[in-house]
Amino acid sequence: MEHNNHSSRRKFIQQSAVVGAGLVLGNPLQVLSQVNKQKIMASNIKSKGFAGKDEHGKLTSWTFERRPVGDSDILIEIKYSGICHSDIHTIKGHWGKQVYPQVPGHEIAGIVTAVGKNVTKFKVGEKAGVGCMVNSCMQCKSCKNGEEHHCETTGMVGTYGTPEKSSPTGITQGGYANNIVVTEHFAIKIPTNIDLQYAAPLLCAGITTYSPMMQYKMKKGDKVGVVGIGGLGHMAIKIAVSKGAEVYAFTTSASKTDDIKSFGAKEAIVVNSGEDLKPWRGKLDYMISTVPYAYEMSPYIDCVKPYGYFTQVGQPINGALPINNFNMIFNRVNFNGSLIGGIPETQEVMDYCAENKIYPQVQLIKADEINDAWDKIVDKRARYRYVIDASTF
Amino acid sequence: MEHNNHSSRRKFIQQSAVVGAGLVLGNPLQVLSQVNKQKIMASNIKSKGFAGKDEHGKLTSWTFERRPVGDSDILIEIKYSGICHSDIHTIKGHWGKQVYPQVPGHEIAGIVTAVGKNVTKFKVGEKAGVGCMVNSCMQCKSCKNGEEHHCETTGMVGTYGTPEKSSPTGITQGGYANNIVVTEHFAIKIPTNIDLQYAAPLLCAGITTYSPMMQYKMKKGDKVGVVGIGGLGHMAIKIAVSKGAEVYAFTTSASKTDDIKSFGAKEAIVVNSGEDLKPWRGKLDYMISTVPYAYEMSPYIDCVKPYGYFTQVGQPINGALPINNFNMIFNRVNFNGSLIGGIPETQEVMDYCAENKIYPQVQLIKADEINDAWDKIVDKRARYRYVIDASTF
Ligand SMILES: [Zn+2]
Ligand SMILES: [Zn+2]
Ligand SMILES: [Zn+2]
Ligand SMILES: [Zn+2]
Repeated sequence: MEHNNHSSRRKFIQQSAVVGAGLVLGNPLQVLSQVNKQKIMASNIKSKGFAGKDEHGKLTSWTFERRPVGDSDILIEIKYSGICHSDIHTIKGHWGKQVYPQVPGHEIAGIVTAVGKNVTKFKVGEKAGVGCMVNSCMQCKSCKNGEEHHCETTGMVGTYGTPEKSSPTGITQGGYANNIVVTEHFAIKIPTNIDLQYAAPLLCAGITTYSPMMQYKMKKGDKVGVVGIGGLGHMAIKIAVSKGAEVYAFTTSASKTDDIKSFGAKEAIVVNSGEDLKPWRGKLDYMISTVPYAYEMSPYIDCVKPYGYFTQVGQPINGALPINNFNMIFNRVNFNGSLIGGIPETQEVMDYCAENKIYPQVQLIKADEINDAWDKIVDKRARYRYVIDASTF
Repeated sequence: MEHNNHSSRRKFIQQSAVVGAGLVLGNPLQVLSQVNKQKIMASNIKSKGFAGKDEHGKLTSWTFERRPVGDSDILIEIKYSGICHSDIHTIKGHWGKQVYPQVPGHEIAGIVTAVGKNVTKFKVGEKAGVGCMVNSCMQCKSCKNGEEHHCETTGMVGTYGTPEKSSPTGITQGGYANNIVVTEHFAIKIPTNIDLQYAAPLLCAGITTYSPMMQYKMKKGDKVGVVGIGGLGHMAIKIAVSKGAEVYAFTTSASKTDDIKSFGAKEAIVVNSGEDLKPWRGKLDYMISTVPYAYEMSPYIDCVKPYGYFTQVGQPINGALPINNFNMIFNRVNFNGSLIGGIPETQEVMDYCAENKIYPQVQLIKADEINDAWDKIVDKRARYRYVIDASTF
């Protein structure tokens, strides 16, 4: 990772950008003196958030430091932060051993309060977001192609939990906090016409479902199945519907049926066993599953037409999923996985949803409700995306 | 299945076709009298072969009866019968409970010795083959499209072990025997210029590897990986090479290296652990795996380029395969399965291999060597296809 040269760049203080706009920091907004501005650029940024302290996964308040704002960095005052099932899996060590304390959160929306001297994409006072990654090599073919999440040299630097030399805590720290410092390239511009609380979930739930549906080249009239109707699944429905697809939503929660219809799905199918899927065999053009646990995938995959595609975006514990090749040789479906999306595509889904008024269904919570929200997500009781009001950290 | 009307059709005796050609039966060939001919059409056909008697999978000699030759049927005197790993899995109950005695074998090559009165595709004395299926509904869209193996109503009737009313033993009986009765549609014409011993393995090993490679639209210069170099795998190499692909063969048997090169592969990669696969990550355009047991697929799938395809044709016990979605979200490979191929495509691979002199590497054995051959196949000691000389039943 190319964080080594950040410290030298940090010595410079951007003068120009600040003169007109002023630096906005804290809440209520305050115009900083030149002295304060220099401090932001030269010293670590104090941050307050909620962190996991061990793999039991109870989050508690934590004060920590972020790196100073480098020449290509922006400082975002976080307003809203979405809760993703990945936060839970990661902090609980389901996907590998973790460093603690760790602040999760990769659906981050806020206001730019400082910019490094080389920053061109953002001005202080603008809306900005951060999704699932905060850096990559920017040199390899994937990075140059706007697939930074598939960086071929260092791999992407995740928004939280990835070792990072420039971070005072040794790892990247995520969005359950009141601010974040990020290289401008990895920040997403949030249009003025979308509320920050709706913008936040687009940065993971939105892009993660949008990207594979675009890769599949979903078109008007396609019969699209969505499996698992939570934070990601309900966005998949809304995006697919807006693209003209006929959407069939598969859920194990009968209580979600009315909501599913309200999202625009043509039908909600409540699945109690594989038998409930049999009428759907070979009926769908494409299917996306957001189920974040190991489950019997094969009868779902069977619902796709021969030579169609099925994408698994939900990540189970340790990634392990059973697949039955007897099903696969008969259903002839192409199974694939999909991570998030690159920065250009994340900007695309943000702009698309703002323009088409595609908003996640959010439940705003305070910081001290996070642990309760996590339990509800695991129990399938979220409706549909918990979003933390960052002023409560 | 539409076997009910066979019995009525059997009452008719084809007169015309026989006058010129005569009916050929037994070994040495003999012209039948009109009386014998009538018997073949009206009565069950005596057959002698090797059958599994229980799931221990030891085969012993067995005399049984086949249905009489119906109006659309042909009788084939089997000359050679290939041994497929599927025979072993099936008889041992690895893919589900079986009816015994059961004669396996679905790589059948021989000479037509009788034809029903409606038969137009074959004449007595011609070469004919039977692969993995002997019937289907012939009415549904898949059947009409030449994808009889994906028959949407009855499903395909497998060459052995499938319940079948017209069969005196209650199930279809396969090719480890001296003859077989089959509807002409499900018999494959074998060109005069290919030896029957080479033709036999094309009917499963050939078509099973050919079909997915054609589906993938493999083209000249493609880098194609083949995993598992046995009966199917060595045919996959030969077919891919003949289509102009650059073939990389992955084997766990170092002793196969020279053979693999002789089949035309560019490189033989001996795999002792996942580490040996790392240099191949993202390097291949397409990959086909013939491994018939559960194995750690994910590091193999990783060898395919993003958005490429990986086809698993080997069928493990109960079909269960582990897949790791952490690999899948990063490798972006499309995983699929493939069964055999339809009748038109099976004819296509037969004609293609005959024309291009693509012959399997066979080891001829006698009937009493079958059990030993099965053990060697399981122990990966086959080089590469055992073919039974049917005159030894
Ligand atoms: Zn997420
Ligand atoms: Zn890169
Ligand atoms: Zn076979
Ligand atoms: Zn059919």
